[in-house]
Amino acid sequence: MTDKEAAQLITGAAKGCPKECGQAYAPVNIALCKYWGKRDEMLNLPVTSSLSLSLPELGATTRISFREGHDQLFLDGVEQSRDSVSARRVSKYLDLFRPDRSTFFHVESESTVPIAAGLASSASGFAALALALNDLFQWNLGLRDLSILARLGSGSAARSIYTGFVLWHAGTREDGMDSFAEPVDGEWPGLCMGLIMVSRREKAVSSRIAMKRTVDTSALYRAWPAKVESDLKNLRQAIEKKDFDLLGRTAESNALAMHATMMDSQPPVLYWMPETVEEIRKIWRLRDNGLPVYFTMDAGPNIKMLFMEKDASLIREHFPDMEIALS
Amino acid sequence: MTDKEAAQLITGAAKGCPKECGQAYAPVNIALCKYWGKRDEMLNLPVTSSLSLSLPELGATTRISFREGHDQLFLDGVEQSRDSVSARRVSKYLDLFRPDRSTFFHVESESTVPIAAGLASSASGFAALALALNDLFQWNLGLRDLSILARLGSGSAARSIYTGFVLWHAGTREDGMDSFAEPVDGEWPGLCMGLIMVSRREKAVSSRIAMKRTVDTSALYRAWPAKVESDLKNLRQAIEKKDFDLLGRTAESNALAMHATMMDSQPPVLYWMPETVEEIRKIWRLRDNGLPVYFTMDAGPNIKMLFMEKDASLIREHFPDMEIALS
Repeated sequence: MTDKEAAQLITGAAKGCPKECGQAYAPVNIALCKYWGKRDEMLNLPVTSSLSLSLPELGATTRISFREGHDQLFLDGVEQSRDSVSARRVSKYLDLFRPDRSTFFHVESESTVPIAAGLASSASGFAALALALNDLFQWNLGLRDLSILARLGSGSAARSIYTGFVLWHAGTREDGMDSFAEPVDGEWPGLCMGLIMVSRREKAVSSRIAMKRTVDTSALYRAWPAKVESDLKNLRQAIEKKDFDLLGRTAESNALAMHATMMDSQPPVLYWMPETVEEIRKIWRLRDNGLPVYFTMDAGPNIKMLFMEKDASLIREHFPDMEIALS
Repeated sequence: MTDKEAAQLITGAAKGCPKECGQAYAPVNIALCKYWGKRDEMLNLPVTSSLSLSLPELGATTRISFREGHDQLFLDGVEQSRDSVSARRVSKYLDLFRPDRSTFFHVESESTVPIAAGLASSASGFAALALALNDLFQWNLGLRDLSILARLGSGSAARSIYTGFVLWHAGTREDGMDSFAEPVDGEWPGLCMGLIMVSRREKAVSSRIAMKRTVDTSALYRAWPAKVESDLKNLRQAIEKKDFDLLGRTAESNALAMHATMMDSQPPVLYWMPETVEEIRKIWRLRDNGLPVYFTMDAGPNIKMLFMEKDASLIREHFPDMEIALS
């Protein structure tokens, strides 16, 4: 099945009546158990399920309307050249939804996170775009369907449709209709995530390429699905029982294992900077001294710390540059 | 089988006639395909085979003689306290060879490498000790048997019995009598190894503990044996054809994969320092610019570069602190 057929399977059943402009917001999400590896490149179907936490205050707001001639994309107020990577990727996604070949779109997206710095800007971007399209075309789709539509733009966007803890089911169907995200029960007041920006520069290797290279060349990746299975079980248990140490330990281990499979790829992918090692060691030192703080990392050099609100002021003392993203 | 039974199986058949003092030298060896994981803790039997290159000029010289009362160990001229880790480890090893319970040994060992800095000082140390015991007792054992005796002290010591490229067979027997090292054919004039000492401090986690923790807790480790099998094939082919890029690429990938399995352990083991990442990135940058240089790492933060003699002066310009260990 192609991505276009998948999109039409969902939107074709919806009786929309387009309005002039669609608008939506979607949060960034940080995976505690990572999405790493595709079983279908075109449909963004993952090898394993994954589990994330959405950061309600960081995300993308997207407006979309019709225009003629060609698509137009503004990111944070700056028009993107038509042959830029981002404009081409968005236009390719919009191809799935054009009523006819002469319909084009004007898209404006404002993001509160730096783009391509390992902060999942594409997840919130494509989730906001899918939601904005739903608003524009007045499809009134359910969140599951929207999660699938978002996934067709960027895998982890499937999870940015929701707030809180979110589980994205890998699914087994070839058409991906069982590969959607849904919320995991469990409010967790006081749970904090703090960002340490080691670098704001664009990554040398995109996560898309790093993921594909890992699947294609890493010998250790063969053991990744078993690792994920065990980590997901532990994370769900941690959320259910509000066991912060189990949550932190599992998320940290999962992130390290993902980076481990990258390092094992050929040629190796290493997102770590010297400062990454420095911050990791600092976190471990603080933890050895009794401060419950853990970290996770995505496909980039930056670090996301997990801690409880009661420890926030102490954490801030040790990491004055930290941006608290959730509390 | 116990290690004592294994030692007696070998030395019992030898008709020795002890002299006053035994002496031997054994080189350090750097694995290009790592020994990482034991299938038998007591006999130091490895999960996989491994392949190394001995550095003829770095190593340990050991003298051993009889004494009464208790064992005495001097490392680089400094007497080690009887309850120090090194003295206890050596005494435990000497237990395998005492003719009776009232025989003790005086051991002096001089090493040209810093101890416990990830430069395999225990490999050359126990290989030199096994060779010195053979000299002392006049066993006249063959190198295969000596490789097994050295292995009982420290796994990778099995390889330090030889110079050049060395393959240590994992073996399948429970008594380990088929788990010995032997030389791999292939002189390689011009092949150089340069050491970059990121840290000379003793490691926070010994490689023995790191290895055991990896085997016990790393999910990715399950894929390690398949990785080794493929790397060994590539290394042997590289040595046979003098294909430096294949040798370097494979050794580098194998080392990264070993560190990857450590990072995936619980709690994680990270030997990398910020400077380790800096040097790795520098090596990759130089390689991207056409300089054929690769690296390997053992269970520590230090880096061993692989390059050809023709590039040595250029390499030295970029790494003025490098110690050339082989050329």
